[in-house]
Amino acid sequence: MKEKDIKGIMSKKSDLSAWYSDVLLKAELADYAPTKGFMIIRPTAYAIWEQIQARFDAILKEKAVKNVYFPLLIPESFFKREAEHAKGFAPELAYVQETEEGERLAIRPTSETIMYDSFSKWIRSHRDLPLKLNQWCNVLRWEVKQTKPFLRTREFLWQEGHCAFATEREAEANMMEIILEYQTLCKELLALPVMIGRKSVSEKFAGAVKTMTIEGLMPDGKALQCGTSHNLGQGFAKAFNVWFKGEDAKEHLVWQTSWGISTRLIGAVVMVHGDDKGLVLPPRVAAQQAVIVPIYTESTKSEVVRRVRELEKQLKHVRCFVDEREGYSPGWKFNEWEVKGIPLRIELGPKDIEKKQVVIVRRDSGEKVIVGEKEVAKTTERLLGEIQDALYRKAEHTLRNKIIEGKRLKDVQAGLEKGLFVKAYLEDSVAAEKGLKEKTGANSRFIEDANREGICVITGKKVKTIGYIAKNY
Amino acid sequence: MKEKDIKGIMSKKSDLSAWYSDVLLKAELADYAPTKGFMIIRPTAYAIWEQIQARFDAILKEKAVKNVYFPLLIPESFFKREAEHAKGFAPELAYVQETEEGERLAIRPTSETIMYDSFSKWIRSHRDLPLKLNQWCNVLRWEVKQTKPFLRTREFLWQEGHCAFATEREAEANMMEIILEYQTLCKELLALPVMIGRKSVSEKFAGAVKTMTIEGLMPDGKALQCGTSHNLGQGFAKAFNVWFKGEDAKEHLVWQTSWGISTRLIGAVVMVHGDDKGLVLPPRVAAQQAVIVPIYTESTKSEVVRRVRELEKQLKHVRCFVDEREGYSPGWKFNEWEVKGIPLRIELGPKDIEKKQVVIVRRDSGEKVIVGEKEVAKTTERLLGEIQDALYRKAEHTLRNKIIEGKRLKDVQAGLEKGLFVKAYLEDSVAAEKGLKEKTGANSRFIEDANREGICVITGKKVKTIGYIAKNY
Repeated sequence: MKEKDIKGIMSKKSDLSAWYSDVLLKAELADYAPTKGFMIIRPTAYAIWEQIQARFDAILKEKAVKNVYFPLLIPESFFKREAEHAKGFAPELAYVQETEEGERLAIRPTSETIMYDSFSKWIRSHRDLPLKLNQWCNVLRWEVKQTKPFLRTREFLWQEGHCAFATEREAEANMMEIILEYQTLCKELLALPVMIGRKSVSEKFAGAVKTMTIEGLMPDGKALQCGTSHNLGQGFAKAFNVWFKGEDAKEHLVWQTSWGISTRLIGAVVMVHGDDKGLVLPPRVAAQQAVIVPIYTESTKSEVVRRVRELEKQLKHVRCFVDEREGYSPGWKFNEWEVKGIPLRIELGPKDIEKKQVVIVRRDSGEKVIVGEKEVAKTTERLLGEIQDALYRKAEHTLRNKIIEGKRLKDVQAGLEKGLFVKAYLEDSVAAEKGLKEKTGANSRFIEDANREGICVITGKKVKTIGYIAKNY
Repeated sequence: MKEKDIKGIMSKKSDLSAWYSDVLLKAELADYAPTKGFMIIRPTAYAIWEQIQARFDAILKEKAVKNVYFPLLIPESFFKREAEHAKGFAPELAYVQETEEGERLAIRPTSETIMYDSFSKWIRSHRDLPLKLNQWCNVLRWEVKQTKPFLRTREFLWQEGHCAFATEREAEANMMEIILEYQTLCKELLALPVMIGRKSVSEKFAGAVKTMTIEGLMPDGKALQCGTSHNLGQGFAKAFNVWFKGEDAKEHLVWQTSWGISTRLIGAVVMVHGDDKGLVLPPRVAAQQAVIVPIYTESTKSEVVRRVRELEKQLKHVRCFVDEREGYSPGWKFNEWEVKGIPLRIELGPKDIEKKQVVIVRRDSGEKVIVGEKEVAKTTERLLGEIQDALYRKAEHTLRNKIIEGKRLKDVQAGLEKGLFVKAYLEDSVAAEKGLKEKTGANSRFIEDANREGICVITGKKVKTIGYIAKNY
């Protein structure tokens, strides 16, 4: 195993897990909490979450989805009303110690049950539909698996959207519309390539008719579920009595969807783009896209500071700041902003002033670009665009090269050993998924309908479904 | 008691509490939760919270306060470290049922303890100071008092700021800076007049050296604490070992502050500005400042809709929307937006088109303004400004008229009976506050230093402090 380098960060190739922890701590993204399985989200990471929130919240507002806030605590009986949901979440519920109410209250793991209890009061007529609500909140799932900051923690932050429609067609369309928005968000904002697919019957959300997922691939070949969108059919509507009077003057059950993305996306950004120097932020999600570091001695200070001020003004179309802290050397500053993943570093010293130039350094490639002082703004904007594209292209290339086809079970096993994402004919059944897990330790991340029949690698039956198989976080 | 009017809203004057509940339900601000003492924040109210968040978060960013997120669950032992804090919060803690960890975990009522445990790891040198963090989150206090949506609930949303400084002076200045920002926010955004003052020794935050408060006055004469800012001194620093190496190379304890505002402010807006028709929103905090209601018959529809589209474009500097729902009469729409407090209603029908005019109706005064179609944008902006000012002036006038001076205890009692805010000489001691509570059912909302001595209405001692006395939510 490679020694840690001078920054105290393990090499990414030699030990991904240790590298990940090192980057979280050194880039000050997260810290371990005194409570087991929890995490502290520090400013560098929270700023990423704010960018995700700002972008996605604007999309929700365009779609006339309204934000709300429902209680943290949910009566135990609510979880028993929808049988599949109850079964799925029971092992992960944390209850508050007995209160005067008599009934146990669970900390929300997700809010379908408590929201739909209100839906049954608020929805009366077809005029009340569609009802499209969302909340940004914390949820808690008492994980027993090994936790890892952002990727799997007992508490995380997310948005959960909950919609009710008059028709099945609208619900199905909403589920698809949102999963496509999630994919776009991952691509455009986070430079993360993700695949869209349908979850198998045993992997879908507890209580859903159909779950669509976006799945990313981490450098160790493990898949990461980055967001899901569910067509809930009428199961919850039945369990919570959500009826409406249709235009036909008859009572009907609503059709529902729910969907969410979480702080897990921060973990994906770190994993996919980070390198041995630390975090690498795609420019669009970086709260700060460029840092200007002045380089001076006592005698050149005033001139350099003056020029740096001008430079900052020139760069007003870029999220940019000057690191003018006293008592830190430029080299120390370079290092800090490299570890924290700021896309561009702009250096300015007396020699640069003399030559009417500035030095711009790309975080992703390390490339040094020397530009005339008049071209700084244009070049900076161009470089930010190039970095965003380059990060996506690189990640997309990696993902594409890690997908292979497996005809037989041993191909699947061999592919998984190598950290690959294996496509193989797979029956969409609980039995096939169970067999797969036993024989490979992996499961299908999603299922694709095939054009022609093939032999399921587990059950040996002829099927028309292909599973995308990987281990997962 | 007056009957409820056609809107189903109780008269504000005859039964404030019933009026408040009616407005919350009819304006769809909140709904009662299935969990006792909790509330559901519906879109109309959440939109107010988003405006508050947007405004105050921008202020925090200007002040270089960084957002973070700490765990919801806090180990029980943390609450025992700072004695005053422990005593103050013990009765309100809700614990999660025993977990494998062995130690009980409480749902955060506030995050001083868990944050400062991290501060002790993150702060090493004077270079790490000041450390200024904030989080937007939910907190839970297991109230046994009667709850009321927004004003007092077991769970609420808030921001909690936590700062550490090298000097006492900086901490004191930060406490004051923030309480002044809170006052400005209340005034500028919410049109709420609030008084600033120092909490008495028995009313200050558990663990603080000094608490500054902003207090508003509700129509029933009860005071509402709208935000607090604490100088924590070094008590928490001592309890959580938050030391730094100073420029003198010696170890020092940091000086700390914490401060917060919450969704309670939504309740204050409803209480202070609302009327018998429902909610009245100050324009600056209204997510939608104006609604355009088209009035047409089948034959005039296309022309009216065309004009309404043009009107919407003219009003692009205003947060404005068109209510073009089919199947609702204009009168039904007028009523809905009145109940929901939209500051301006703009009506446009065939007669208006003929006369090249529009009708604008103010929500606060009911005043109808008829303007030529070319003046709509200018008039709308002017009216929004006038409404904002008028609401503040009216509330400020009410507050000023409700403050009286009380020389003796019976004056205090008589004033409180009439729903007034009574200024009286009061010793700043636990004994005086206890006596006051026993004799009047009220307490001091804050204490002011007087220029000359007077006789404490409770202890009879000569003191130089004046208490502002009121009952409270």
